[in-house]
Amino acid sequence: MKKDKILLAHGSGGKMSHNLIREIFMKYFSNATLEAETDSAILEGRPGWLAFTTDSYVVSPLFFAGGDIGSLAVCGTINDLSVSGAQPVAISASFILEEGLPLEVLERIVRSMAAASVKAGVPVVTGDTKVVEHGKCDQVFINTAGVGWIKPEYRDISYGNKIRPGDKIILNGPVGDHGVTILAARESLDVSSDIRTDSAPLNALIRSVLEAGIDVHFMRDPTRGGLATVMCEIAGKNKLGIDLRENELPVKETVKNICEVFGYDPLYLANEGKVVMIVPENQAEKAIAVLRSHEDGKEACIIGDITHNHPGKVVMKTEIGGSRIVDMLAGEQLPRIC
Amino acid sequence: MKKDKILLAHGSGGKMSHNLIREIFMKYFSNATLEAETDSAILEGRPGWLAFTTDSYVVSPLFFAGGDIGSLAVCGTINDLSVSGAQPVAISASFILEEGLPLEVLERIVRSMAAASVKAGVPVVTGDTKVVEHGKCDQVFINTAGVGWIKPEYRDISYGNKIRPGDKIILNGPVGDHGVTILAARESLDVSSDIRTDSAPLNALIRSVLEAGIDVHFMRDPTRGGLATVMCEIAGKNKLGIDLRENELPVKETVKNICEVFGYDPLYLANEGKVVMIVPENQAEKAIAVLRSHEDGKEACIIGDITHNHPGKVVMKTEIGGSRIVDMLAGEQLPRIC
Repeated sequence: MKKDKILLAHGSGGKMSHNLIREIFMKYFSNATLEAETDSAILEGRPGWLAFTTDSYVVSPLFFAGGDIGSLAVCGTINDLSVSGAQPVAISASFILEEGLPLEVLERIVRSMAAASVKAGVPVVTGDTKVVEHGKCDQVFINTAGVGWIKPEYRDISYGNKIRPGDKIILNGPVGDHGVTILAARESLDVSSDIRTDSAPLNALIRSVLEAGIDVHFMRDPTRGGLATVMCEIAGKNKLGIDLRENELPVKETVKNICEVFGYDPLYLANEGKVVMIVPENQAEKAIAVLRSHEDGKEACIIGDITHNHPGKVVMKTEIGGSRIVDMLAGEQLPRIC
Repeated sequence: MKKDKILLAHGSGGKMSHNLIREIFMKYFSNATLEAETDSAILEGRPGWLAFTTDSYVVSPLFFAGGDIGSLAVCGTINDLSVSGAQPVAISASFILEEGLPLEVLERIVRSMAAASVKAGVPVVTGDTKVVEHGKCDQVFINTAGVGWIKPEYRDISYGNKIRPGDKIILNGPVGDHGVTILAARESLDVSSDIRTDSAPLNALIRSVLEAGIDVHFMRDPTRGGLATVMCEIAGKNKLGIDLRENELPVKETVKNICEVFGYDPLYLANEGKVVMIVPENQAEKAIAVLRSHEDGKEACIIGDITHNHPGKVVMKTEIGGSRIVDMLAGEQLPRIC
């Protein structure tokens, strides 16, 4: 086996692990906390509230239009912290590598992670690498965990207990782009260039809305399970009804068309750069104005309301004037989307 | 495929994911933070210093004498926080599951994680589950990340800048048990019952030493790469020499014998319940007394010294009176030990 591939010894904890850390991870993720090479990263504490989250990424293929497993892993964890009302401060990166993986593939992924980390202003401060025998994993799996600080006034956003009937449901742009991008990459579809993952760090966007004084009642990122699943979670947990309006729901034409051909519903497709915000009715327009001033919120719009009616249920008013119950994703649509 | 196996839909983020969370993860990892089902776990902040760490676990086989991948994943991250001088407060658990994995295997692992978490007093507060197609991973991989608080007076322990010539190197018990346990499980060796993993949460043990007022200059857990690699890291980073004494180094007879047969050196074998402590000479005996009062420190002893001589090098004084340079693990001994 050539030297330019991952060997089991890269996961030994010995010399080759140290070389890999120096030549790839330290090279791209350079920051003082990581370079201290302490057993745990050491960060400044703060009074108030600490948000802590984790996600593993197993997306297939590793590279797709507009992103890759690396940028996804960085943005996903930053977004999980951000929708909790936290300002993300640091993330970890833990790799499970398949023996034989070309080092250049790993380097390309790490470079992309570093770029996403710089863009978001959230450093990778600690990590781990394991190597398994050829055939025992699928090239690369990445786990990122993250920590962030929540100001006391934003602490309740996570719990959903502020949601009230009459609140407006806002989305920062069209749904389904990420799901269709992965589908297109797998099926080698020759789709138009507007289909690329929406994967993006949303910390700055969300922070702008909070700092504008919008009393955000709840936020969540509609990733796996799509918008439908998030809506059902909110309705179910809070015993409130949700009305969505199909004609207000932003979906790109290309996404609609591909969904029709393959029999998917964009409502269930994963997104990686979207946030659902629930805000008081009288602040909805202001929230949309703030969102639209950002690159990742240009197409922000109101997609529905919280209602007293049909508690626990999500109802979609269809374009042709009817209505249907929206349920959580049953079964599996597109495995390994993230 | 039967219902009692992991399906791709368990990783969809939809209904089956929710069922899996409720029926397995919530059942065993029950605590208020997790049960809030927020996007990130929300913990109380503190001024001072925050330790943050991560590790992925890919050990094969999943179950072995005295432990399994689950207890290893919980203890490993708790120990990484503890050797940083932190009091661990919470960990995450992120699973990558192979389609077709029997649910009872997952449940057994989660039960073991929960038991280790209760034993250590460190709850699992957030998590994630991904499922990959059959053949795309090896049953179960687990990532745990963790956070803990470091008192200001313990902050420098991590950096190694307190280490001085004359300091004593203490180990809390015999090396190589974990490595030999995994080897025995793989080779189906019929070894004596004293060979079991040393995997244990060391937070209480380490805390006792710190709270006894011992001015610990540095700590590290000699896991992958073994004691030799940790010693080389310390010597290399701090430009100090290390003298080890072979006749002081605790190694069980069975471990020695198996190492001889298979050609391994116990110095390079992984440990999962060991801590190396570097303490001032005049506090070494007191530190040992505190360690010995604990179940996981009964065989604590001094194994060597920090020296002005041979800076950057680790020298082993052999039992027959000679000396040899100890180098970092080169290549790979036993892959997938953790």
